[in-house]
Amino acid sequence: MKIVSYRQITPKNFDNKEIKDVIGRVVIGKREGAENFFMRIFEITPGGYTPKHTHDWEHEVFIHFGRGEVYTNGTWHPINADDVIFIPANEEHQIRNNGQDILIFLCLIPSKAPEL
Amino acid sequence: MKIVSYRQITPKNFDNKEIKDVIGRVVIGKREGAENFFMRIFEITPGGYTPKHTHDWEHEVFIHFGRGEVYTNGTWHPINADDVIFIPANEEHQIRNNGQDILIFLCLIPSKAPEL
Repeated sequence: MKIVSYRQITPKNFDNKEIKDVIGRVVIGKREGAENFFMRIFEITPGGYTPKHTHDWEHEVFIHFGRGEVYTNGTWHPINADDVIFIPANEEHQIRNNGQDILIFLCLIPSKAPEL
Repeated sequence: MKIVSYRQITPKNFDNKEIKDVIGRVVIGKREGAENFFMRIFEITPGGYTPKHTHDWEHEVFIHFGRGEVYTNGTWHPINADDVIFIPANEEHQIRNNGQDILIFLCLIPSKAPEL
């Protein structure tokens, strides 16, 4: 068993045209021995966003803190702490922080996908 | 895409000798089209606990709120909000709430396991 506060895990910073003001951490991955799926935790500062993209694996998302919006099929939908989001494979998506506080969410993926 | 506050999902209550004062919800499962892994969210009121058990699939756990303890190999370890726990397959484990507030955590499992 491994127990760790996610904040102790070294983050990777993303800040370019595609993905702005995002910090990502692989908190359960190959290193921990996970074989079937990986857990990542992302933090987006106000004004930041993840890339608008599509891939052939699903996302299972949980909003831990804050608020923002998620895009799909031409529409932005509000998201808040305690929300659960299932994004099926091959569905275009993007998450942005249009709130005043940091947005913190978990995003889990199957192990066929890149960890981060 | 499906977006829902986890609290809107009908919970299942557990209260017997093996598992005390626990509410569980399948928040992403077969119903949502998940094929590789399932997300469940559990709430334990103070004094409650999950069963002490072992099975041949892993748990990926995130503590969303509160504090408690997790058991493995004869020892109880403190757990707090923001902690991530990886419990490998075939490792005995149990979670209890010895705090003053509700304990809320996510527990994800591969799809070969029962949803709840």
